[in-house]
Amino acid sequence: MIHTQSTDTSLEQALQQKINLKTKPTGALGRLEEIALQVGSIQQSLNPQINNPHIVVFAGDHGIAKTRLVNPYPQEVTAQMVLNFLNGGAAINVFCRQNNIALKVVDAGVNFDWNNTIANSNFINAKIGYGTKNYLEEPAMTEMQVSMAIEKGKEIVAAIHQAGCNCIGFGEMGIGNTSSASLIMSAVLQIPVEECIGRGTGVNDEQLKTKTETLKRAWKKYSMLNDKCSMFNALQFFGGFEIAMMAGAYLEASNRKMIIVVDGFIATSALLIAKELNETVLTHCVFAHCSNENGHRIMLNFLNAKPLLQLGMRLGEGTGAALAIPLIQASVNFLNEMASFESAGISDKE
Amino acid sequence: MIHTQSTDTSLEQALQQKINLKTKPTGALGRLEEIALQVGSIQQSLNPQINNPHIVVFAGDHGIAKTRLVNPYPQEVTAQMVLNFLNGGAAINVFCRQNNIALKVVDAGVNFDWNNTIANSNFINAKIGYGTKNYLEEPAMTEMQVSMAIEKGKEIVAAIHQAGCNCIGFGEMGIGNTSSASLIMSAVLQIPVEECIGRGTGVNDEQLKTKTETLKRAWKKYSMLNDKCSMFNALQFFGGFEIAMMAGAYLEASNRKMIIVVDGFIATSALLIAKELNETVLTHCVFAHCSNENGHRIMLNFLNAKPLLQLGMRLGEGTGAALAIPLIQASVNFLNEMASFESAGISDKE
Repeated sequence: MIHTQSTDTSLEQALQQKINLKTKPTGALGRLEEIALQVGSIQQSLNPQINNPHIVVFAGDHGIAKTRLVNPYPQEVTAQMVLNFLNGGAAINVFCRQNNIALKVVDAGVNFDWNNTIANSNFINAKIGYGTKNYLEEPAMTEMQVSMAIEKGKEIVAAIHQAGCNCIGFGEMGIGNTSSASLIMSAVLQIPVEECIGRGTGVNDEQLKTKTETLKRAWKKYSMLNDKCSMFNALQFFGGFEIAMMAGAYLEASNRKMIIVVDGFIATSALLIAKELNETVLTHCVFAHCSNENGHRIMLNFLNAKPLLQLGMRLGEGTGAALAIPLIQASVNFLNEMASFESAGISDKE
Repeated sequence: MIHTQSTDTSLEQALQQKINLKTKPTGALGRLEEIALQVGSIQQSLNPQINNPHIVVFAGDHGIAKTRLVNPYPQEVTAQMVLNFLNGGAAINVFCRQNNIALKVVDAGVNFDWNNTIANSNFINAKIGYGTKNYLEEPAMTEMQVSMAIEKGKEIVAAIHQAGCNCIGFGEMGIGNTSSASLIMSAVLQIPVEECIGRGTGVNDEQLKTKTETLKRAWKKYSMLNDKCSMFNALQFFGGFEIAMMAGAYLEASNRKMIIVVDGFIATSALLIAKELNETVLTHCVFAHCSNENGHRIMLNFLNAKPLLQLGMRLGEGTGAALAIPLIQASVNFLNEMASFESAGISDKE
């Protein structure tokens, strides 16, 4: 990543020298060398560590999803998938188990009443409401809800950090939330919403046309956003609870100098908001995966970000982040464990 | 990968159906879905397993390296790095430890006499000679040496397979071996050698010019290769012991229906030879990483291969393979562990 802390250039030089003296040609570990430099800079250490890595999946429902204008799956799937996460059956569970990543699942605003039936230590009840409002009719959230969600996101990350975690990735689940992400992207990047729309979880051609028309209507309703008004308002108008909470989570993770592993399209849209609120958040971000969702590449270019993986995935849940964490771990491990030319008694170039 | 076994299309259909019924939109796990299908097809199983994965690093020296016309590092580095591998200080050690991959280090023909000083169960002495001959003067290997190396590679893989391994990646170490790989690539792809040359472990502009002139001279000396003569001869003329042994290793791994994880430029050049000897080897190959070495992308296109990773590395040693194995494991894990829509009680698209 190009975003490295500039507070201590002598430490960065020492890190770069340590990397260069490892038993390999200069630069031969490519992106891993960049990540090692970034992580060392974030932690201000020549021997950085990845401790107790976490993925936090924020789940929320969207009023627009009830119209079925943008989403092939019905709204109930959000709650059903939350249960799937808690039962260990989703892709993110599989990847977290494999890579020894702790998983927390947050109800940021799912339209379902659990009736206290969930007794699972990985579940965090932070429900702001039973789904957002339909933005074709009224703003998705109230200003108060946005603030509450952002604060709650900060609280959640603070608690996880206090439990010893210094590396965190954020995932999401919310039927209809690629549409919110597209609208937010359009507001932040100031490009037409039709350039920000993709197939989400798999709309067909006709559904894509309807999705596009719907989002253009939504955009027109809040056309003051054309004048690059507050990004807080873009978030408020288009939702959702999980995106707002994730924005707060990014801010707190950055504040606590954690390594932030940025997942796909929706997670990156929340980062766009967080960055508008505090630019330094990018310093802590490692970009995990370039999604197959149309528009994610445009967002990444806007952020000058180079993701570690390009596996053609488009699932969300933090799956890209969970698959990238072993590569971040590999970066830290080579920095800490590899021999130097001198210690191994190896001849350098002549 | 496009190379899947066509022996049992009903099994492939069943695998694809199993993948599609997982709790995710169709295709949402991208490349991991392709790998799951490939691995299931190789193992002819709906529940494939990765057992006891190995990286085998083949080390060998090259006569040309003594001239210093193609290599910034001196020849002694090959032996020094073998000791580094055995002491656990190289990048491949770090990545294998992290990912629970067993590592074997093979002396295929290092120009160093260990005097029986190596008592390390991960070391395999299969020395064919004390480095190859300088191909500017005479063929790098005798026909007998090529055959011996190929057979030895087969034996080594057979023993590892018998010890319960079904997933294997091959790495290499040999000062000067990017030059052999470039010459072999030129012979197999029938393109000018100057299009097959890169900076190896880091030659500068002037050194690159000398390297290019040297390899053009070598090519001219064996100009009968322009008529696409035996690839066995290309291997014999240009070396090296580690490349020949790796070619044999590919063949045996394919014969035993192992999953073969293909590393970078030199490892892929050995695969070019193996493929000429037996086309079906490609069926078992998962391509790990697109190297920064010029020409690797051309080789991969020739093989119609899409590597899992593009991290800008150019180190060899099997490092790309070691970093890709967790992604192959993730593919198998989602296939075996994820819930289906039905088992999780999740609504499908309507």
